[in-house]
Amino acid sequence: MRVGFIGLGNMGSGMARNLIKAGHQLTVYNRTRQRAESLESRGARVVSSPAEAASAAEALITMLADDGAVEDVLLGHDGAMGALPPGAVHVGMSTISVQLSRRLGAEHQAKQQHYIAAPVFGRPDAAAAGELFIVVAGPSPQIERCRGLFDRMGQKTFVIDEQPPAANVCKLTGNFLITTVIESLAEAFALVRKSGLNAEKFLEVMTESLFTAPLYRNYGSMIVSDKFEPAGFKMPLGFKDNRLVLAAAEEVRAPIPMASLVHDRFLEAMALGLSNADWSAISRVSLRNAGL
Amino acid sequence: MRVGFIGLGNMGSGMARNLIKAGHQLTVYNRTRQRAESLESRGARVVSSPAEAASAAEALITMLADDGAVEDVLLGHDGAMGALPPGAVHVGMSTISVQLSRRLGAEHQAKQQHYIAAPVFGRPDAAAAGELFIVVAGPSPQIERCRGLFDRMGQKTFVIDEQPPAANVCKLTGNFLITTVIESLAEAFALVRKSGLNAEKFLEVMTESLFTAPLYRNYGSMIVSDKFEPAGFKMPLGFKDNRLVLAAAEEVRAPIPMASLVHDRFLEAMALGLSNADWSAISRVSLRNAGL
Amino acid sequence: MRVGFIGLGNMGSGMARNLIKAGHQLTVYNRTRQRAESLESRGARVVSSPAEAASAAEALITMLADDGAVEDVLLGHDGAMGALPPGAVHVGMSTISVQLSRRLGAEHQAKQQHYIAAPVFGRPDAAAAGELFIVVAGPSPQIERCRGLFDRMGQKTFVIDEQPPAANVCKLTGNFLITTVIESLAEAFALVRKSGLNAEKFLEVMTESLFTAPLYRNYGSMIVSDKFEPAGFKMPLGFKDNRLVLAAAEEVRAPIPMASLVHDRFLEAMALGLSNADWSAISRVSLRNAGL
Amino acid sequence: MRVGFIGLGNMGSGMARNLIKAGHQLTVYNRTRQRAESLESRGARVVSSPAEAASAAEALITMLADDGAVEDVLLGHDGAMGALPPGAVHVGMSTISVQLSRRLGAEHQAKQQHYIAAPVFGRPDAAAAGELFIVVAGPSPQIERCRGLFDRMGQKTFVIDEQPPAANVCKLTGNFLITTVIESLAEAFALVRKSGLNAEKFLEVMTESLFTAPLYRNYGSMIVSDKFEPAGFKMPLGFKDNRLVLAAAEEVRAPIPMASLVHDRFLEAMALGLSNADWSAISRVSLRNAGL
Repeated sequence: MRVGFIGLGNMGSGMARNLIKAGHQLTVYNRTRQRAESLESRGARVVSSPAEAASAAEALITMLADDGAVEDVLLGHDGAMGALPPGAVHVGMSTISVQLSRRLGAEHQAKQQHYIAAPVFGRPDAAAAGELFIVVAGPSPQIERCRGLFDRMGQKTFVIDEQPPAANVCKLTGNFLITTVIESLAEAFALVRKSGLNAEKFLEVMTESLFTAPLYRNYGSMIVSDKFEPAGFKMPLGFKDNRLVLAAAEEVRAPIPMASLVHDRFLEAMALGLSNADWSAISRVSLRNAGL
Repeated sequence: MRVGFIGLGNMGSGMARNLIKAGHQLTVYNRTRQRAESLESRGARVVSSPAEAASAAEALITMLADDGAVEDVLLGHDGAMGALPPGAVHVGMSTISVQLSRRLGAEHQAKQQHYIAAPVFGRPDAAAAGELFIVVAGPSPQIERCRGLFDRMGQKTFVIDEQPPAANVCKLTGNFLITTVIESLAEAFALVRKSGLNAEKFLEVMTESLFTAPLYRNYGSMIVSDKFEPAGFKMPLGFKDNRLVLAAAEEVRAPIPMASLVHDRFLEAMALGLSNADWSAISRVSLRNAGL
Repeated sequence: MRVGFIGLGNMGSGMARNLIKAGHQLTVYNRTRQRAESLESRGARVVSSPAEAASAAEALITMLADDGAVEDVLLGHDGAMGALPPGAVHVGMSTISVQLSRRLGAEHQAKQQHYIAAPVFGRPDAAAAGELFIVVAGPSPQIERCRGLFDRMGQKTFVIDEQPPAANVCKLTGNFLITTVIESLAEAFALVRKSGLNAEKFLEVMTESLFTAPLYRNYGSMIVSDKFEPAGFKMPLGFKDNRLVLAAAEEVRAPIPMASLVHDRFLEAMALGLSNADWSAISRVSLRNAGL
Repeated sequence: MRVGFIGLGNMGSGMARNLIKAGHQLTVYNRTRQRAESLESRGARVVSSPAEAASAAEALITMLADDGAVEDVLLGHDGAMGALPPGAVHVGMSTISVQLSRRLGAEHQAKQQHYIAAPVFGRPDAAAAGELFIVVAGPSPQIERCRGLFDRMGQKTFVIDEQPPAANVCKLTGNFLITTVIESLAEAFALVRKSGLNAEKFLEVMTESLFTAPLYRNYGSMIVSDKFEPAGFKMPLGFKDNRLVLAAAEEVRAPIPMASLVHDRFLEAMALGLSNADWSAISRVSLRNAGL
């Protein structure tokens, strides 16, 4: 398949590499060109503008940091939307707002292009290994058309709705759940440590009894060892997603107080200078507030 | 082993049965005698006071609803503590306060009896199947002495500390983590449902990707199907544990705001008349507050 | 003084009337022209575009609902900013974001115009009576130049800073404090009513002892009598200000958890259909959540 | 009137002095006798047990730190309740739990003694000046009988109910409102200071516009000047009252989330070593959490 791929950060570069390995023809664009060039030797064509990446694509994949980056790349100067051929499909895999996803759907439709939202769960190592979880929403025929791409990038693809924004809601809500895991563990550790227990021992009991999801083990270990750099997912990106889930909740009038609590944890963590740490460093707040 | 067993509720009756099956000699006591009698045919000796249950025991197990029940049974009229022989061990498996556990430790010691705290994770079906998770703290030799009992009642025994109250902290903190799972799922469902998504579909994506612990599937299904009776663990017991974890946190000066949030959910759920429902019915609050 | 006045809603119409009474020459613009015409008989000149209102003004006053309205009027088609003469001063009295205030400051400066932020405290009756509290920030000479205007619109003018956004921070934070009064009273009433006390009696004790600010009496009476319409300040405007104070706090990394709590109250109130009520109807949430 | 007075701390000594000045015959008891002796020269009779203070009293006033102290003094060894003559009235002015107040009512009745709950608002300087606000509940004839006492100790007496515990609910809820004022100011200061504003200036704007109650000025000044010692009302006493209002709310099933938030502030403040400071030092938490 002729694939345009825009956004070769920690996540995107692994995903693109897996598509190339599977024989797809990739035309790649990244704002800092150097990151794109490392894919050149593997067979990707590197271009200098989003428009060039889109102009001959059957499918255009975007994997960018936030709403602003997606808007720039699609709608800005030399943007991809103007260049994408009618009938081609844009597969938006970035974690963006529900609102922007809705707007992209409308604008692509006006241009007789297709749009699928396909955000992912997984950290950079999962992206590199082709083991992401991909949540997909959009018109069924287009999803089928792209299934070969999803199969290479992820270990499991969940098709959940015909309307693209549904996938974004799902992704943002999932990230919200992850933050509740981080926060709950942090508070638990604050309590057990101040009670004189060994936090590692406590974590072992939890993860070998009821909390068997690897998520608990992984984040729990990071928090216990107090090691948050290098960041798999940086604090400001985590905060951005917290803001997006709150915005989604505001729009539909659904109070989600745990997200409000986590919101304030992010602010506190960043006020303490933890902006370069992994987002799980919000756990430091609970420990600090207990005097630890 | 000669075992006194006090407390034959939803949990205790399954646990006692498993001990009998394994060949231990049980002397059982329950406030409402009927529940005890169902064990008689299986070989248990049924007695009429806590003291009788304790008087010839090598190990005395208590599995009761709350601090008050434990105090009554041990320290009240015809209480077990006065009758338990020196050298015998009291295995406290109820979910009680850290404070009471500390006090029991001291009082047993004064009487040259031993005390182990061994609270459990698991609902009545796990108790019946001998698949509890048991968290044990106390003097090592006594724990070893009782290992045969634990092996029959649980699928895994975690020995975590020499001081009994450590096990109670661990249990209460674990229950706190469970409440955060319930609450986070409830808030997530409120958001996805108001966004027009199918909550069951959302739950499937979550539990088949990152949230693979059965806990998420089990509580998630209860919440999605809005079915909270018959209760596996009743609302007021859940609230009691929430109060106990907050009390433990107050004592050591550790703020745990998620427990405070859940505290207010319990109050709201009970104000709405859900006191006979399973504790996971606190999820109704999030949905109701979103206008669902 | 030749004054352009844009925005003749509940607040603006009273303010404009007071300026006319004091002899200032007003050129007024309102999106729905009818509201402007009621001022014509009092001597105001009614115009059909923001630009006309600004073109001959020494001072341009804007009193609009939100950021969007201010942007439209100043920067949109036939906008006021392009027409305002160099050397004239824009007095922004709307409750807008810190961010927009900062941007207006920069854009006016680029056009050699002046900018003062002068948001107000007070409800429509205070606007009509010329009894607003006005919080002013901007260059001193411009503030002095406008003092005659402030004196007619308000009972007290607070000059707090040379930088306009400071006044917006002050206004938003003040509104935040008002929401904490409303919320705290609502929770207090929930508790006392469920305890069998008379809420009105309780309010009397509070307002005649420690909580003597009229604010407590006024909002307290509204809540006790459960009468929220007609709205002095509508729910969605209150929510907008809550969002703006949270945005201001996000920008400077200051967690303000009471605003997060109130945020969720607004969402719940709007989910319950209270969008046409006064913002103090968020109090219904606390009573409802207590089962009242 | 023959008055027994028990509890001569910061509050009680001023109150007792005012009663002596007014010509009442006081028999006083204090655990540390020295504090009582300072009243001897003014005409009080100093005794060595609660029972002696009560034995000839027409009215027995208690002004103690907490439930435990009240229980000791009334029901302990040489306790006052056993000695108080039938027909005499116990005026409980301490800030105690609703539950204990209810129990005292029942026990006094059983002994044909009377009981009035009459907790107060005001700090030690107001107690010394006879300017407390007194909230009274109990049987009307007994209240009338004691009115002369109230008039000397307070500037205003609010009679609110025939049932004593109503006064305790009112007092605890009022203290809850005070904590929301402290917390809201602290959060406001965190935001304005991080936004580059002068907190004192901000406080001035607030207290001279909408927040005119002296409470805002007084606590606001303490927070701005960061001066919390000597404590007018010590942190652990403030925390006790927070616990009592939460207990009252638990009993009647009324969620009051602002009290939960303040609860966690108290824990954090005490974890940071502020246990000797005035309760308003919980404000330090908001500033610290914003990185100030």
